[in-house]
Amino acid sequence: MNPLHEIGEHEAIRRLTASLALHPDLVVGAGDDCAVCRLSGTPYDQVFTSDPVIEEVHFKSDDEPRRIGHKALGRALSDLAAMGAEPQWVLVNVVAPSVYNVDRLEQVYEGIRALADRFGATVIGGDLAEGPVFELHVFATGTLPEGSALLRSGAVPGDAIYVTGPLGCSLEGRHLDFIPRVAEGVFLRETEWVHAMMDISDGLATDLRHLMKRSEVGAVLKENLIPRNGSLQQALFDGEDFELLFCVPESRTDELEAAWLDRFGTGLFRMGRITDQQECLSLEAADGSVSLLEKKAFEHFRNPDFR
Amino acid sequence: MNPLHEIGEHEAIRRLTASLALHPDLVVGAGDDCAVCRLSGTPYDQVFTSDPVIEEVHFKSDDEPRRIGHKALGRALSDLAAMGAEPQWVLVNVVAPSVYNVDRLEQVYEGIRALADRFGATVIGGDLAEGPVFELHVFATGTLPEGSALLRSGAVPGDAIYVTGPLGCSLEGRHLDFIPRVAEGVFLRETEWVHAMMDISDGLATDLRHLMKRSEVGAVLKENLIPRNGSLQQALFDGEDFELLFCVPESRTDELEAAWLDRFGTGLFRMGRITDQQECLSLEAADGSVSLLEKKAFEHFRNPDFR
Repeated sequence: MNPLHEIGEHEAIRRLTASLALHPDLVVGAGDDCAVCRLSGTPYDQVFTSDPVIEEVHFKSDDEPRRIGHKALGRALSDLAAMGAEPQWVLVNVVAPSVYNVDRLEQVYEGIRALADRFGATVIGGDLAEGPVFELHVFATGTLPEGSALLRSGAVPGDAIYVTGPLGCSLEGRHLDFIPRVAEGVFLRETEWVHAMMDISDGLATDLRHLMKRSEVGAVLKENLIPRNGSLQQALFDGEDFELLFCVPESRTDELEAAWLDRFGTGLFRMGRITDQQECLSLEAADGSVSLLEKKAFEHFRNPDFR
Repeated sequence: MNPLHEIGEHEAIRRLTASLALHPDLVVGAGDDCAVCRLSGTPYDQVFTSDPVIEEVHFKSDDEPRRIGHKALGRALSDLAAMGAEPQWVLVNVVAPSVYNVDRLEQVYEGIRALADRFGATVIGGDLAEGPVFELHVFATGTLPEGSALLRSGAVPGDAIYVTGPLGCSLEGRHLDFIPRVAEGVFLRETEWVHAMMDISDGLATDLRHLMKRSEVGAVLKENLIPRNGSLQQALFDGEDFELLFCVPESRTDELEAAWLDRFGTGLFRMGRITDQQECLSLEAADGSVSLLEKKAFEHFRNPDFR
């Protein structure tokens, strides 16, 4: 039979994208937060992302409609932020049962529009079709100077690992209200100090492994430096945080923290370092003992949990 | 309650898009086959479209997977064709139940890839998420010289109305195999003779009304000149034909037909003319009698039929 739940989301995506065609203007294809394409004849690259939010998977059917719209666009803007891109165009496909309330749908759109306005994104189209449950599929583009996109690859041993905010317990409500780190992403790109970056959607442990894999490095996190809303386990595995996870060389950390404080008036969370032990993700406890971190995370098709 | 099925797809889209923000680079927003945006710093515009295909709405669950993938991308390419654009980038969101067969999903992707290759489109990303039924959401971009996009608006009284192929009965199978009229769309744009163009997805009668509305004109079709696969009713109302419907000034019809024959070796179907009677769509019978055409068409949320 070979059902999806036996191989999981990531292996399925790997198989589907393994033999996709290349193109001279395609800088980065599937496997990063966004695809990156050269904008021929300009000094810019254009980045592309698409994100689904599905009833009873990414939100509950009785969640406030404005917040559902907010989350749908927020996920896409967070992907743009993870590249350091400025948001540009947005299209939204809506799927809904024929009994779906139109006023509710208008409120969903208000949530999308308010967030788009805040970050200079413009909703330019989409489609509306009938289906068994309510879904939004958001497509978004962004731009940045040629060659400046921050990728998951590029981290090198010795880099400090940062995150832009506390992790865990997002499903208690924040996953519907988070503010995508668009301004922070652009700021970090402009510093030119960041080696690698991504946003945290699947959980710190899983996402850091993705970054490690693309960068061909390992990492060690200091348990008591991981900023968290709940337990350590929740910070590591809950996901849907939509904070930025990034790596900068040790030599730039003081400058970075000072510049960040000056710009945003808040702290940054430095919580570990990149190592040369490929695929090894370790936790360092307060007493200095180091242990390998187990693999465990949310993945579409493999977990019964709400996501 | 105010459910979607009471107002239908088109009125719902109108409401949702009524208060969307504008942008100086946005040339055409929601309401045409694609949105059109200026590509600043280049002599090009970029066009954007997104199309869902949903199990038991746009295809049956036991349809061949390659054909499902083909249709999903074909719909998006047909929208690009309707503007006269060259295909560029494609992203695909897949929704599937966790028991969905991975080999089947790979075949869906083969269908997408084969069609993308044929028309120079490149699949650069997407997402995969769990949901109750199988769906594909295809997002595609295209490019064309600045200001050259063929819109639904622009038809003027006296224009001849053409279609690129026979209509009706598509749901008997062709809706899964149609070849999007990409080459034809580019050719028609390059002639500079076309006043207005769109593709036929909702059925000739409904789509021609859309074009009439955007152009603020009326139209009369000659019954016995409408190319069809089945009955006149089927040609008018079935939909999912994905042929191009377009208008050219009477003075260019001979040149156009000769150029078309030279380029494609096939005929074009001239089937009526644009009038100044706004919103009036009429049928002229073989005996010369003219009657107003009833409004009746597939629309998402308003019909029980398969689409």
